[in-house]
Amino acid sequence: MSVTAFQRQSSLVPQTGRDARLAIRSGEWTGPTSGIAPGFVQGNLAILPGALASDFMRFCQLNPKPCPLLAVGAPGDWRLPSLAEDLDIRTDVVRYRVFKNGEMVDEPTDITKYWRDDLVIFALGCSFSFEDALTEDGIELRHITQECAVSMYRTSIPTTPAGPFHGPLVVSMRPMKPADAIRAIQITTRFPAVHGAPVHIGKPELIGIKDLAKPDYGDAVTINDDEIPVFWACGVTPQSVVATVKPEFCITHAPGTMLVTDRKNSEFAIM
Amino acid sequence: MSVTAFQRQSSLVPQTGRDARLAIRSGEWTGPTSGIAPGFVQGNLAILPGALASDFMRFCQLNPKPCPLLAVGAPGDWRLPSLAEDLDIRTDVVRYRVFKNGEMVDEPTDITKYWRDDLVIFALGCSFSFEDALTEDGIELRHITQECAVSMYRTSIPTTPAGPFHGPLVVSMRPMKPADAIRAIQITTRFPAVHGAPVHIGKPELIGIKDLAKPDYGDAVTINDDEIPVFWACGVTPQSVVATVKPEFCITHAPGTMLVTDRKNSEFAIM
Repeated sequence: MSVTAFQRQSSLVPQTGRDARLAIRSGEWTGPTSGIAPGFVQGNLAILPGALASDFMRFCQLNPKPCPLLAVGAPGDWRLPSLAEDLDIRTDVVRYRVFKNGEMVDEPTDITKYWRDDLVIFALGCSFSFEDALTEDGIELRHITQECAVSMYRTSIPTTPAGPFHGPLVVSMRPMKPADAIRAIQITTRFPAVHGAPVHIGKPELIGIKDLAKPDYGDAVTINDDEIPVFWACGVTPQSVVATVKPEFCITHAPGTMLVTDRKNSEFAIM
Repeated sequence: MSVTAFQRQSSLVPQTGRDARLAIRSGEWTGPTSGIAPGFVQGNLAILPGALASDFMRFCQLNPKPCPLLAVGAPGDWRLPSLAEDLDIRTDVVRYRVFKNGEMVDEPTDITKYWRDDLVIFALGCSFSFEDALTEDGIELRHITQECAVSMYRTSIPTTPAGPFHGPLVVSMRPMKPADAIRAIQITTRFPAVHGAPVHIGKPELIGIKDLAKPDYGDAVTINDDEIPVFWACGVTPQSVVATVKPEFCITHAPGTMLVTDRKNSEFAIM
């Protein structure tokens, strides 16, 4: 899913948020966004009709760990100037998913023809930002070593409902040696805008996870005997919550192709 | 070991560091220091001959988690003005232990007659400070609920040696629900001068602890199925390391009767 070491060094890989958006907008970059524009914040995307927007915004504010709001658009506005001046949400994501009444009806690379005057953009923080900080600190991330998607699980922890939005918290899991787990808690505490500190550690059964080898989303990874599972609130939570509501209309990013911004991950560190 | 709720409310319990020292110095307070002068830093005490002092200071600086140095005295000086202006280390601790060649020879309440011109005082941070912050945050400390001493274990983790000082890290263990463990890591990270963040979490066998029910020091506590053990570097480490060296002469505080200072716990929070 991520770019190779060769690609990373290659001049073909966009190195800034703006370069990434330009390459995506022009159709030059069609792959996943993991590893491009290193150091720049990437986000989860949800675009909802105005009738649902205020409930969803309230849902995000009630559940900041799975739904850390980076930016909300004005109704009908396709721009998010607080994340990038030139950003046009209709063209700047590699691939979108368009849903009608809960059914996916299209996976376009451009949503200009779907735009409506009442749509509201929600950009939510994603774990790429804190993973960057963990990797910088020398902490191994197993799904990156094993070149697969992070393991994700539905839990028995409910989110706080708002209007029609409700459902279980989804978590991502990264196995770590205990000393690395402690360090990872310290590091991710610095990033409340991108999921922040873990919500759980050790003992998966306490949060309703029966078998770590069978994730509900993503891939299973090796967990060694000297490691404990560390669980973070996951951006799949709002996606699964929105899917439950089956909104009349809704657009998200396709998995692996996130919104790339001009903000730096380090800007989101609280210290 | 700790004062009762009745005593806490009573005017008989010293409420400041200075009041505590005056009551101890005059012989009015003869009990343990847990719970007196709430909010004020208490410390572990080691007094060593000058010939060993520089190696021990280096040992503390190499092992800051088990040996967080609050203050070091000048050779022969019984004062520690950085901790309290009026402090006289010869009279201001409830009970001392005097060792000759590694053997305890006395447990006096005053060490004036033992004072020598080459003695150097070491005051080391203790877990009371971070326990205060954990309790303030609503985290249950099992040994306090069960009114016993915290569980402590020798580990397979070596300290970094300095001169004759060497030996295993001793840890204290507090069982917690996973969410409380994460919060406790965040809170104690703020207090690097009093042991700081945990050194280990979960899986005691990875650090050489065979049976949590059999601590090497202190008392065993109940660990519930929904809890994980959280391990902090412990101030017993320097005591056990000094005991191994069998110094020609040495004085420590007696267990439970710490040095009470005028510094506030909150002063030692880094943010």
